[in-house]
Amino acid sequence: MTFLRQPTRAGVRDAAAKLAAILPATPLFTCDLKGVTVAFKAESLQPIGAFKIRGAWHRLTALDDAARGRGVVAFSSGNHAQGIAWAARKLGIAATIVMPHDAPPVKRDATLALGAEVVGYDRATESREQIAARLAEARGATLVPSFDDPWIIEGQGSAGIEAAAQMARAGLPAPTLVVVPCGGGGLAAGLALALPDARITVVEPEGWDDMRRSLEASWIEPVDPNPPPTACDSLQTQRVSALTFDVLSRRDAQGVAVSESETAAAQRWAAERLRLVIEPGGAVALAALLAGRVAPEPGMLVLLSGGNVDPAAYARVLAG
Amino acid sequence: MTFLRQPTRAGVRDAAAKLAAILPATPLFTCDLKGVTVAFKAESLQPIGAFKIRGAWHRLTALDDAARGRGVVAFSSGNHAQGIAWAARKLGIAATIVMPHDAPPVKRDATLALGAEVVGYDRATESREQIAARLAEARGATLVPSFDDPWIIEGQGSAGIEAAAQMARAGLPAPTLVVVPCGGGGLAAGLALALPDARITVVEPEGWDDMRRSLEASWIEPVDPNPPPTACDSLQTQRVSALTFDVLSRRDAQGVAVSESETAAAQRWAAERLRLVIEPGGAVALAALLAGRVAPEPGMLVLLSGGNVDPAAYARVLAG
Repeated sequence: MTFLRQPTRAGVRDAAAKLAAILPATPLFTCDLKGVTVAFKAESLQPIGAFKIRGAWHRLTALDDAARGRGVVAFSSGNHAQGIAWAARKLGIAATIVMPHDAPPVKRDATLALGAEVVGYDRATESREQIAARLAEARGATLVPSFDDPWIIEGQGSAGIEAAAQMARAGLPAPTLVVVPCGGGGLAAGLALALPDARITVVEPEGWDDMRRSLEASWIEPVDPNPPPTACDSLQTQRVSALTFDVLSRRDAQGVAVSESETAAAQRWAAERLRLVIEPGGAVALAALLAGRVAPEPGMLVLLSGGNVDPAAYARVLAG
Repeated sequence: MTFLRQPTRAGVRDAAAKLAAILPATPLFTCDLKGVTVAFKAESLQPIGAFKIRGAWHRLTALDDAARGRGVVAFSSGNHAQGIAWAARKLGIAATIVMPHDAPPVKRDATLALGAEVVGYDRATESREQIAARLAEARGATLVPSFDDPWIIEGQGSAGIEAAAQMARAGLPAPTLVVVPCGGGGLAAGLALALPDARITVVEPEGWDDMRRSLEASWIEPVDPNPPPTACDSLQTQRVSALTFDVLSRRDAQGVAVSESETAAAQRWAAERLRLVIEPGGAVALAALLAGRVAPEPGMLVLLSGGNVDPAAYARVLAG
């Protein structure tokens, strides 16, 4: 499926208005770090526990009645799945989600509870893209990618419109630096469009920092064939897309990588200091800040992008 | 110290206006339980991680300049301490907190970080009331009780004004039943004043359910001399006060008790379903709902009153 359409700032603003009509803004918290007030946007507190609800709503509401009647298909390890399932249920659209057998049970169960059909696949031997494409073709359904889609990017960017308004109300400077977790780059690209005057730093787990390497190389580099294990299930993207890369590259976005222990420390800090449950992939931007890989500055906005944890694994992280 | 003044609904509304001028409303979340939409007020997301910031702000802002200059003294195992310290710092008032040596380190450290002086005492052999009263007398400072005070009760009640407005905006019915954790009863009494048309159910840990027994007996009964251990450090109050008891008794408030395992299960549910870190004492109202001790009904409002946990103990709870 080819999209000629490019994501735009006008599209982000449209998405923000659509989201504001159905959901309250996620809370913005502030903390003083080394004498600097840093803002944290808690996307973990969305009804599905992640920002993915934004892009899903913007995309599905853009479908015409005929397309809605044929349903949607998505592939996702979890949070995008829940976003699509949530939006589809609210709009009365049938949703089919292609999800790896080893997806966190909490995410699979939540997707089923939202009324979606879940089709499993083996992450090691099967291609979720092919399975999803075949399903979509057989049913005439619309395939909804998790990041390689202009509506999805615009929808995720609505978090930036919200955050800027909240920072202004809190008497903080306009966002100067956005630090954001990056899988495929949909949230980061959306924020870049939403906040044209801010610098963008994307954060990935070590060994999965293909966006960082791509931005440095000025072309898209995939993840190495045998990446290290990571707890960040929501950031395990093999390759970013031209759409997200182009937006971030044109904005001279920077990339940093964080270690697994830095991510775990950030999850503990979020629990203790912000009283928020943050999943590993949702905590990497905070980890970059706390580990000193990004320096705090006035106008800094850090995205806490999701909070869907496996309880046992999360308990081990908190126990340190 | 005797207060002739009674807490009033007008005082609660005044407190709500004062709070709205300095802090955003804490988020209200909804969940469907047995087909009924229940509202959860996340006071754990206050800057100090608990509702106590409300009463503290309402009380300290009511002091005149001379009283502010002489400082304030409070006794608290933690959350009230942080509330007083937070409000005192913001107003430039010196705060001294009498706190048991076995208070959770996270709460003591947070109080110190807010600039208060902490005076320790032995929970088993010393009377915090006497220590605090002596300190206040010696310094001419104002003693600020954690619940036996009309301003404190009114301040805590501001959460009810906020929640009712949020429920209306979310298209929910006006609050019909408020389920609220109870230590000394300050929050419960404040909510009763804030929401004159709602029924009130207070929830306490088993063996510490002196408000429940007092309401049934129609006079104040203290906790038994050897109460069982409880993880709910913020609800270990030996005796409720005439001020809080009278408000709740006149409203025919009901009391229920929950077990330690029901409280732990509620903490796990809050982490997994709401992505919120809730402390044991903050989770008892949710525990009563999940354990079936209170039936869900439309217009139900459940207070999640605090989120200051000891990380190691919290990790054990999540591990189940």
